Amino acid sequence: MSGDQSKAVIGNFFEDFTVGQEIVHATPRTVTRGDASIFIALTGSRFVLHSSDAFAKSVGFREAPLDDMLTFHFVLGKTVPDISLNAIANLGYAGCRFGVPVYAGDTLRSRSKVLGVKENSDGKTGIVYVRSTGWNQRNEMVLDYFRWVMVRKRDLSKPAPDPVVPDLPKRVEIRDLIVPKGLKLARYDAELAGSPALWEDYKAGEKIDHMDGMTFEEAEHMMATRLYQNTARVHFNQHVEKDGRFGRRIVYGGHVISLARAHSFNGLANAFRIAAINGGRHTAPSFAGDTIYAWTEILEKAEIPGRKDVGALRLRTIATKDRDCAGFPYQTVTAEGRKSYDPAVVLDLDYTVLMPRRIKAAKAKSAGKRRPRPVKKAKRGAKGRKRRR
Amino acid sequence: MSGDQSKAVIGNFFEDFTVGQEIVHATPRTVTRGDASIFIALTGSRFVLHSSDAFAKSVGFREAPLDDMLTFHFVLGKTVPDISLNAIANLGYAGCRFGVPVYAGDTLRSRSKVLGVKENSDGKTGIVYVRSTGWNQRNEMVLDYFRWVMVRKRDLSKPAPDPVVPDLPKRVEIRDLIVPKGLKLARYDAELAGSPALWEDYKAGEKIDHMDGMTFEEAEHMMATRLYQNTARVHFNQHVEKDGRFGRRIVYGGHVISLARAHSFNGLANAFRIAAINGGRHTAPSFAGDTIYAWTEILEKAEIPGRKDVGALRLRTIATKDRDCAGFPYQTVTAEGRKSYDPAVVLDLDYTVLMPRRIKAAKAKSAGKRRPRPVKKAKRGAKGRKRRR
Amino acid sequence: MSGDQSKAVIGNFFEDFTVGQEIVHATPRTVTRGDASIFIALTGSRFVLHSSDAFAKSVGFREAPLDDMLTFHFVLGKTVPDISLNAIANLGYAGCRFGVPVYAGDTLRSRSKVLGVKENSDGKTGIVYVRSTGWNQRNEMVLDYFRWVMVRKRDLSKPAPDPVVPDLPKRVEIRDLIVPKGLKLARYDAELAGSPALWEDYKAGEKIDHMDGMTFEEAEHMMATRLYQNTARVHFNQHVEKDGRFGRRIVYGGHVISLARAHSFNGLANAFRIAAINGGRHTAPSFAGDTIYAWTEILEKAEIPGRKDVGALRLRTIATKDRDCAGFPYQTVTAEGRKSYDPAVVLDLDYTVLMPRRIKAAKAKSAGKRRPRPVKKAKRGAKGRKRRR
Repeated sequence: MSGDQSKAVIGNFFEDFTVGQEIVHATPRTVTRGDASIFIALTGSRFVLHSSDAFAKSVGFREAPLDDMLTFHFVLGKTVPDISLNAIANLGYAGCRFGVPVYAGDTLRSRSKVLGVKENSDGKTGIVYVRSTGWNQRNEMVLDYFRWVMVRKRDLSKPAPDPVVPDLPKRVEIRDLIVPKGLKLARYDAELAGSPALWEDYKAGEKIDHMDGMTFEEAEHMMATRLYQNTARVHFNQHVEKDGRFGRRIVYGGHVISLARAHSFNGLANAFRIAAINGGRHTAPSFAGDTIYAWTEILEKAEIPGRKDVGALRLRTIATKDRDCAGFPYQTVTAEGRKSYDPAVVLDLDYTVLMPRRIKAAKAKSAGKRRPRPVKKAKRGAKGRKRRR
Repeated sequence: MSGDQSKAVIGNFFEDFTVGQEIVHATPRTVTRGDASIFIALTGSRFVLHSSDAFAKSVGFREAPLDDMLTFHFVLGKTVPDISLNAIANLGYAGCRFGVPVYAGDTLRSRSKVLGVKENSDGKTGIVYVRSTGWNQRNEMVLDYFRWVMVRKRDLSKPAPDPVVPDLPKRVEIRDLIVPKGLKLARYDAELAGSPALWEDYKAGEKIDHMDGMTFEEAEHMMATRLYQNTARVHFNQHVEKDGRFGRRIVYGGHVISLARAHSFNGLANAFRIAAINGGRHTAPSFAGDTIYAWTEILEKAEIPGRKDVGALRLRTIATKDRDCAGFPYQTVTAEGRKSYDPAVVLDLDYTVLMPRRIKAAKAKSAGKRRPRPVKKAKRGAKGRKRRR
Repeated sequence: MSGDQSKAVIGNFFEDFTVGQEIVHATPRTVTRGDASIFIALTGSRFVLHSSDAFAKSVGFREAPLDDMLTFHFVLGKTVPDISLNAIANLGYAGCRFGVPVYAGDTLRSRSKVLGVKENSDGKTGIVYVRSTGWNQRNEMVLDYFRWVMVRKRDLSKPAPDPVVPDLPKRVEIRDLIVPKGLKLARYDAELAGSPALWEDYKAGEKIDHMDGMTFEEAEHMMATRLYQNTARVHFNQHVEKDGRFGRRIVYGGHVISLARAHSFNGLANAFRIAAINGGRHTAPSFAGDTIYAWTEILEKAEIPGRKDVGALRLRTIATKDRDCAGFPYQTVTAEGRKSYDPAVVLDLDYTVLMPRRIKAAKAKSAGKRRPRPVKKAKRGAKGRKRRR
């Protein structure tokens, strides 16, 4: 065989990562309205901010920004060929902050820094900790997160590196959340957004069953994953996976997050912005044919310093497969006191959303009637409202 | 369980509707070129007006408007969470008029008014009649229609309301059809449109077998339905539907209309605009794996008052599953004289299209050579034509 | 039955083609960012030129042009209703040259000229040779190719025409390749493109296993084929195909080319432009469920007259199904000395790509530092680079 395999890459293995290493990921991506449409076609997401230019303008955005999950998928997708092509397991996310909103036409690129490496006792695998950041073409941060994955060693004879385990943020602090610049909620129309429930109406400990279930197909999860140019092989190659651990292609965990977020509209329609992902675990793999349900617990309710019009809700959203969430399935405690996930659970996501506040919004609204309105920014929306009522 | 289900909604039940009630539907939708591309990818539609900016400009449109069926799906899709989430059956459409063309960038929203309610004798269900209207961001009507659905009661103890059954239009009158403003057919190029057959060439009673058959997959009908943010559960949840009446997810009836319309290109390529849907019935459910065929009967041929360049054709398009339409399958008459649909029939759609007329188009063409042409509007198209021939 | 089938067309049969005949194909198509997104969603393509506006501007394009394979599919798709609707076999391509880059918003149309006809000895079929050309709305050529297909006769009693077999180009000569106008590779960023290997690093005879395998689903290949408005029936109608030769829908051969090209990123990431397809054969049909792999042999390395910054590579890319390409499966030679394709091979594509050259690129880069940069053309990209490093 005269093949020269130096040009085709097989991705980095555990021993290829060193602490401090910086990786520029290839294939920057200009995001488009086409991506937004495909995302809706694959998830059915109904959050109005991402659906309507008129609505987005009415609350201070230039136009409808891309769904926050799309930003997440694009930035993460770029990192896969370098970070997780040989990953056995995607162990977790932490400290994930969303930066400036992403609009169609923006070009996103990603970079990662290796923060830690720790070989496993089996000598065959190790854990790699990275911090990855996504930017737009103006070098504005769009996403910043920590992630750790279990990666295979290629050369088992290589000695284990000195273990470095970085201190990962337990959560994104409320003061570190980024509120989109120019956000004005005075004219936020909850009726068009789909629910009267605003920040004041939620309380910590409250649980919401999002009710809808959605079955996914091979074509769908593969289209989603390819859209993000995420190349992880386990999602695409049935010829190999038929002999693998599950006998099937595994659904990209991020697609499950997309579905759970889309389901959460039913109960959290005004959670217009994901500001942070504090932590996330894919507790079990999902496959084509699974039906995904979700429920959410309000973990915490927080004011945002300096803002009377918008508040934060820290949420735990649990996604399940082939089991509805009327009973809020989560964890069970074994006889030995160990917690384990209900077998139906596939995702445990701890994240923080922004939501309009009622009282101040109402005040601003009446105030707005006295002040002359900025005509250029949201003329159409304003006219629409006047005539519609 | 500490779940508070007041925030997640389960949709309206029969007893939640009252005559005169007005409903503003949530999640206005900015439509995009991405939506148009997905629609083509899912239906293979070839109508040139929606495919080519150059062609659209040459006949007086700003650019290629969205497919009329996309407008229909978007406007209807918005109404589903409020009107038909708990519908057992989508009983019919009537008096559906298409208004101003919809362009990428337009934001569509929907509103419905309840016109009638009538409880069924079983006391468990009832029929709800609504009129729904879609607008763009300039408050121009894009679609207006009547629809009636059979909806479940939640609380069977609730007394039946006084029955109100509205008078529904049997058809949209020709004089009420909306011809897009600025339409100029003088330079309509039938060769690029795909067929030499214009309005003059059709006659009432004529039947056309559209020949093509297309099999749909679960991923496809779900993507279509989600694109329209139509949330009707029967289309998406195999975990529930496996135990339902059919054991399978049901294809959104509107997707069958889309396919039938796309098929109708072969025989009606110049039917560039759906102006009205006079009535429609989904006579049987469709499922993934079904192959959809279609045929059309010309019901009526009508001049449009004040227009010599464009005429109307009232059509009946029948879609079938797993049976070709060479034999024009439709209804059979039982021994008792009752009409029943051929079991292969899934759709009976009565609608009115606009089509260029030959004679006047030819006249206008030669006239056009004498008058100076409006250069800005369609310069490229004009040049393209000159050089191409 | 009163059906009049003169309006619905069943496509041309062998006897409908005459040498010299010119055919204007219907339904010009305005290509969009939506099409580009769907293409990525269906193939996972990662070539940076088509992915990033910022990158495309940095090398002299107005914005990210459409993937060359999309251009090919659109132009070919238009020809199908007239040329190959009744084709039994797509026998080959030759002399395919790519012209000006295609951008979102361009409207593509196709025309074909019949160059030859030759009836087969069975008297039931014949071979039709055509030259097809695609143009944009400015009448600039985007694609030009020869193709020959085997087409059924409808009327077997028709006498065989005088056979005319045109001289087809064995390959596109290097001097005939079209280098996109304005291409400037001085600032080509190989790191963002995904590989350090430039033109100098390849040598004739070298073989590259692209490694990735991708399984396709019915929904995917049908969406791709419909996106191109390619109407060939064998791809869509399971109701008919279940009784056909394979019992299944056949995947559009062009979709296999798309996947092979997308796979080739891994090893040929800098092959930013397909300049020509010298010849291509679909050696076996593919079906949903097949997993497609690919490998490439560098057939030839050529300088481009007058260019020091870009070179050409003539490639043979072989796609296989359900077999990885580590062993470079291709042809076997029988005992009688006859070559036959390995049964796993589905595509044998001979094409020519453009790739940046190292030495001159480096020179130009340093030179660029002395000259003032054209600020308007690629300001953002430039800033991005400065800050990133």
